[in-house]
Amino acid sequence: MSETHGSKLLSTLHEDGRLVVELVEETLPAPKGDEVLVRVEAAPINPSDLGLLFASADVDNAEYADGRIVAQMPDAALRAMSGRVGQAMEVGNEGAGTVIAAGEAPSAQALLGKRVALIAGGMFAQYRLTRADACIALPDDVSAEQGAAAFVNPLTALGFVETMRREGHSAIIHTAAASNLGQMLVRICQEDGIPLVNIVRNGEQVALLKGLGADIVLDSSKDDFSAQLETAIAATGATIAFDAIGGGTLVSDILHAMEEVVSKDAPYSRYGSNSHKQAYIYGMLDTSPTILTRSFGFSWNVGGWLLFPFLQSAGPEIAQRMRQRVFDGLTTTFASQYKARISLRDALTRDAVLTYNGRRTGEKYLIVPN
Amino acid sequence: MSETHGSKLLSTLHEDGRLVVELVEETLPAPKGDEVLVRVEAAPINPSDLGLLFASADVDNAEYADGRIVAQMPDAALRAMSGRVGQAMEVGNEGAGTVIAAGEAPSAQALLGKRVALIAGGMFAQYRLTRADACIALPDDVSAEQGAAAFVNPLTALGFVETMRREGHSAIIHTAAASNLGQMLVRICQEDGIPLVNIVRNGEQVALLKGLGADIVLDSSKDDFSAQLETAIAATGATIAFDAIGGGTLVSDILHAMEEVVSKDAPYSRYGSNSHKQAYIYGMLDTSPTILTRSFGFSWNVGGWLLFPFLQSAGPEIAQRMRQRVFDGLTTTFASQYKARISLRDALTRDAVLTYNGRRTGEKYLIVPN
Repeated sequence: MSETHGSKLLSTLHEDGRLVVELVEETLPAPKGDEVLVRVEAAPINPSDLGLLFASADVDNAEYADGRIVAQMPDAALRAMSGRVGQAMEVGNEGAGTVIAAGEAPSAQALLGKRVALIAGGMFAQYRLTRADACIALPDDVSAEQGAAAFVNPLTALGFVETMRREGHSAIIHTAAASNLGQMLVRICQEDGIPLVNIVRNGEQVALLKGLGADIVLDSSKDDFSAQLETAIAATGATIAFDAIGGGTLVSDILHAMEEVVSKDAPYSRYGSNSHKQAYIYGMLDTSPTILTRSFGFSWNVGGWLLFPFLQSAGPEIAQRMRQRVFDGLTTTFASQYKARISLRDALTRDAVLTYNGRRTGEKYLIVPN
Repeated sequence: MSETHGSKLLSTLHEDGRLVVELVEETLPAPKGDEVLVRVEAAPINPSDLGLLFASADVDNAEYADGRIVAQMPDAALRAMSGRVGQAMEVGNEGAGTVIAAGEAPSAQALLGKRVALIAGGMFAQYRLTRADACIALPDDVSAEQGAAAFVNPLTALGFVETMRREGHSAIIHTAAASNLGQMLVRICQEDGIPLVNIVRNGEQVALLKGLGADIVLDSSKDDFSAQLETAIAATGATIAFDAIGGGTLVSDILHAMEEVVSKDAPYSRYGSNSHKQAYIYGMLDTSPTILTRSFGFSWNVGGWLLFPFLQSAGPEIAQRMRQRVFDGLTTTFASQYKARISLRDALTRDAVLTYNGRRTGEKYLIVPN
């Protein structure tokens, strides 16, 4: 085996604000040393991939040709993304496939012929050349599709639980909780006996999570949401929240509700309670500013939460334990649901883009590149 | 000595939104056990006192009588302060005076006749009955006026430096930096060799801090403020900010500038840099919401910062070291400046209230109750 020919998706933002997402041909060399060549069999389109693939480009009014999309990036977004202008960026954080060639190193040879999961970037491609240690062999009874999303959502959901424990909290509030990640979190918290307050945006999502056995599911579109939230916080003792939305007042509302609950029967202090209230923003379903009313005293913290810095701070032992739990539960606790399976080429059609880029619950796509 | 008669200020918020601030007579019993009776000789009006004394009541249109003010509290503020409705609240966090009577306990007797500083609350009064361990004897060469503000501002400024060190940062950004507290921070950072970026709101304040020898003073009202801020951050490596303002976009602007500096020559990442950026909000000169654009990746944290929880988390050893440093530098590093000295009664006149409640630089008042 010498060279391998395949195609991959690239996203390029140009100086004039044109974003070009296209399918291009590539030639991959034979793997050397500890490299392996993976034939990609499944790669999920995660929200984190969409941020790189399209960001806030105007996909509604884009030009769709066969294997090529040209969309306009709004000026403000263009300025914010000046760091990527002119670079053709590979997309797709994670996926699974089969190792069809390997370098001479024993670690690479050991994977030859194996089905592996990997979080290597550039997975929206037919083939991916990467280092052996980026791959984890899948159990025999796990398909590539079942192993394709073994990292981002599962480790993030487990990371919330680790963060909760590390920082001394005992219950979790989660927003946009009907997502694939949110469903995993429901199952994890059930297994671990952790009280979980799920916040969703409509009745369908309430039904979905209730169907999974979730105990507390609040609909933020209801008039009595604030009161329900305070009741749920009082019942669970939740003092940490993970928010996928980012923009607007929801984080502020959650902190306010936490403060209301602890200060209900306490003597008045103009500084608020000393009960520490924590919120982490880990996504940006809403890119508008986060509005904090600060009507919750001074004992609070709002921060960004991201998987890789978390794994680094947690250390190799905890990261390994988390990975093991995921691989043990790929077909159960950590199973993902997809609306459709599509080829790389079909992923660039208008219908597909407008569906999966909407980031709606239950409309997640799986790319099947070969 | 049996009873002592004196007067004190009380602030009472009524259910109908009327805020009554008045001078009332009180009779204090003789101290017992470890209690001491302090004749208050000086008490500063700190921003933290104003939040309890007037909060956001409409002092412009209040009714001013001799020793009594009636002002209207806006509805939103009234709701936020429902916890204090109907309670006559003593005001004045800190001050200094002379112990004129003491209980039989040795700790109390040891202070008899001594000039002491204390942070006991209720210091806007002629006399304060409190526990001996709330008092610290002042050095002989320190007057009550010099010792009156020995806690809130000095320990807060030192607390910023301790927080900076504890969290692994090496330079500080400070907003509203021309305040008494800000001036102390300038002197502390000079003594300790800590790079400090001072942000102020006008040219006069720039001149004031430059006059103290401050190295970097930025005027946020200037057109080139953003560029200057990035230059200052690049020069100092500041990754932590302390903000007294709270409302608006300044905290967000600071985090954005930090991110711009670290990501300038880094490869593009849609998650932003992994450089941790921290901002603490410790005041609320602007009570409007904090607006975070989140244009600074995911490695950031914004939190409330308050002296007492900080001292608790720091532990008794560090707290004692900080107090010692303050008492050693009361007439130098930690000296406060006052615009005027006023009696309890004069503190309730319209002219005085409109001046000191404006929280403007250089317009701090000292109450001299006896």
